[in-house]
Amino acid sequence: MKKIAIVGAGLVGSLQAILMAKKGYQVDVFERRPDLRKADEIGGRSINLALSDRGWKALELAGIADEIKKMSLPMYGRKMHDVEGNLSDLPYGLNGEAIYSVSRGGLNQKLMNLADDYPNITYRFNRKCLDLDLKSNTIAFQNTEENKKEEYTYDQIFGTDGAFSAVRSRLQKTPMFNYSQEYLSHGYKELVIPPNEDGTHRIANDALHIWPRGEFMMIALPNMDGSFTCTLFFPMKGELSFDTIKTEEQVMDFFQKTFPDAIPHMPTLVEDYFENPTSTLVTVRCSPWNYEDKVLILGDASHAIVPFYGQGMNSGFEDCTVFHNMYNEMEGDWDKLFETFSTSRKPDADAIADLALYNYIEMRDLSGDPDFLLRKKIEKKFAKLHPDKWMPLYSEVTFSHIPYSQALKGGEVKNKIMEQVMQMDNIHENWDTPEVMDKMLELL
Amino acid sequence: MKKIAIVGAGLVGSLQAILMAKKGYQVDVFERRPDLRKADEIGGRSINLALSDRGWKALELAGIADEIKKMSLPMYGRKMHDVEGNLSDLPYGLNGEAIYSVSRGGLNQKLMNLADDYPNITYRFNRKCLDLDLKSNTIAFQNTEENKKEEYTYDQIFGTDGAFSAVRSRLQKTPMFNYSQEYLSHGYKELVIPPNEDGTHRIANDALHIWPRGEFMMIALPNMDGSFTCTLFFPMKGELSFDTIKTEEQVMDFFQKTFPDAIPHMPTLVEDYFENPTSTLVTVRCSPWNYEDKVLILGDASHAIVPFYGQGMNSGFEDCTVFHNMYNEMEGDWDKLFETFSTSRKPDADAIADLALYNYIEMRDLSGDPDFLLRKKIEKKFAKLHPDKWMPLYSEVTFSHIPYSQALKGGEVKNKIMEQVMQMDNIHENWDTPEVMDKMLELL
Repeated sequence: MKKIAIVGAGLVGSLQAILMAKKGYQVDVFERRPDLRKADEIGGRSINLALSDRGWKALELAGIADEIKKMSLPMYGRKMHDVEGNLSDLPYGLNGEAIYSVSRGGLNQKLMNLADDYPNITYRFNRKCLDLDLKSNTIAFQNTEENKKEEYTYDQIFGTDGAFSAVRSRLQKTPMFNYSQEYLSHGYKELVIPPNEDGTHRIANDALHIWPRGEFMMIALPNMDGSFTCTLFFPMKGELSFDTIKTEEQVMDFFQKTFPDAIPHMPTLVEDYFENPTSTLVTVRCSPWNYEDKVLILGDASHAIVPFYGQGMNSGFEDCTVFHNMYNEMEGDWDKLFETFSTSRKPDADAIADLALYNYIEMRDLSGDPDFLLRKKIEKKFAKLHPDKWMPLYSEVTFSHIPYSQALKGGEVKNKIMEQVMQMDNIHENWDTPEVMDKMLELL
Repeated sequence: MKKIAIVGAGLVGSLQAILMAKKGYQVDVFERRPDLRKADEIGGRSINLALSDRGWKALELAGIADEIKKMSLPMYGRKMHDVEGNLSDLPYGLNGEAIYSVSRGGLNQKLMNLADDYPNITYRFNRKCLDLDLKSNTIAFQNTEENKKEEYTYDQIFGTDGAFSAVRSRLQKTPMFNYSQEYLSHGYKELVIPPNEDGTHRIANDALHIWPRGEFMMIALPNMDGSFTCTLFFPMKGELSFDTIKTEEQVMDFFQKTFPDAIPHMPTLVEDYFENPTSTLVTVRCSPWNYEDKVLILGDASHAIVPFYGQGMNSGFEDCTVFHNMYNEMEGDWDKLFETFSTSRKPDADAIADLALYNYIEMRDLSGDPDFLLRKKIEKKFAKLHPDKWMPLYSEVTFSHIPYSQALKGGEVKNKIMEQVMQMDNIHENWDTPEVMDKMLELL
């Protein structure tokens, strides 16, 4: 029986471990950090993620979807906060679909616990990947607990060690390896809206809150404990930026002017602002994702994206689903499997990377724009009338399993049609007339 | 007096060492390889490069231009070889300008010898850069001769260690560092046309020879010893590629069909083909090029490009000229100097990277095309009539000091005009009429 290594015990690594163990392989999972289940607290901050259909499908494959659903909160739409504190709603789906706010740490723990039930999975924590010998497929680790170097040899190695992947760094040195890392000029900082005293949520807990402000934005996702994790996405440098907002007074002043309705809910704003780090936002693209039939990188290691489409984890989980299906089709031919996976999945990773970058502009800019909201309304009406002809791009990405690259292409077509529709005479008055629907049918 | 390190004793590193030593700094130059002046031969192969105006200007600054000119051969144009062995000429300049074929090893030796004349320059060979501590600006090297680790601390560090720069690798791990490496699907192999028995050149030695063949090409540059260095640029994989041409018979067959007029001049073709490595072609882009006022990367380390515009070395040398001028403007303010250099020079590096990629298509594809040749003729005529209004893109890049980014922009404008001119009625018959010149004046 082949021996398989998984480098990185995060979400994608732990899920892939379970899927490979189910197939009967001997799986060793290596993780740079200590076992997060034994840590006193899961980091200092509570990071949450939005699970959607692609993620759920992979969790179902691992048999853990029901359990995770219990620890997640459905968000049925965006709740937009304008500067006066007025709220407006924009549902995510046409038919009441939701995306689910879930704790990254909690989800990771569940996956690890499930993996522990497999006698053929061994976790090895405190192992920092130092180097890979691609000839012999041997990985060198620093055992940071015992302060010694260890080497292990495997038939196949999966690199699931994130955006700053050590496994990928090794591949980057092989000939013909294309690679790019591109940072946004904006970064982010996590803040918090704590629960009410009775443990309930201070604002609606069935939506993703957005404070769109053109050049930047804040969002908030609900947690199970009644709190919200807020994230301020903001320029790193420039006139109004993390660089310039640096005294307590400046923070309060900026929030008073920009997010006045949020302030009463953020009693620890100033402390959080100064205690929490400012993090960067990177897009990583590379190819190929494999080295012969020996190494394959998955998830953020091969395609790290910005978080604005809520598809980072979901696309990583979908890697596992796609790999699993391909494995069943071509069992035994690892060379073909790795190469085919890398070649065929890469365009989808590129597509969701582009969509995620674009969606930042949409979220911070357009969700406050009446034209944008009208457009969504018209699209929704048409899609309800002709569900076989039109699924909005957001729904295809979030609530379907259509390949991302296909969704992107279809989105460009729909975009052109909607641009023409929005140029119809008096569209703001006439949008609800049959002429508009007919025009769309004609344009399709 | 500040202490300065230069990591990489190649062409740009040695030139920058001289320029910094001229300013009175204490300069240490580190090189991974042994002193190439003590090696028995300069590698196995004779690599040559094409020096043009931007390169010459930097060599003049270092006071070494005259000496280098003596060891270089002017090439006044491209000499194209078609499959039947017919030759046609395409001059490089409007006024008899030339680019100069020079030996990379020879040029590097001269620069090192010149550097040795400065008591404030110390070369340290056999030092492999292991790591940089950016806080203290300390570089760790492996002394590969004595097999020990060494550390040195500097005020400023210049990384001139090429396309696979170790200094850049360290910067790549800092936040907000954008980076990409992109390989062409084509690679190259060097071959040779040896001298005649009397030491003379077998084919014209005042031109760059091109065998354009659409999907690929071979070129040849003359050397001082009567030989030519030929380079076959060819797909790495695919039906007709390095992957498929792999027996002696296939090599001979391919060359007989494709480059028949070259075969009589290539008696060692088969040996060379199998002995010489197949190399890859990479474009590297990154930003920023500096880390505070501590580290700056130059030349291929910050902008490696493909060789098809003959501007790799020239753009690296121009980095030194531009840096030198900026230094004189803002002496003392290293922080501003490094940041300004990085910000202002980067668009020019991007421009020449794009131009070099595009020129591969032009060289292998268009130089055999009558439309392309006619277009060049019309451009030349107009430029001669209106030298103040029109300089062909190739001339701006090769024979001027106009920033590359400006040349690229101007090239796009000229391109559009020429497209319209080429669509004039019967242009192949009427190109030499005043109407064509008038039309161009009008379009400008």
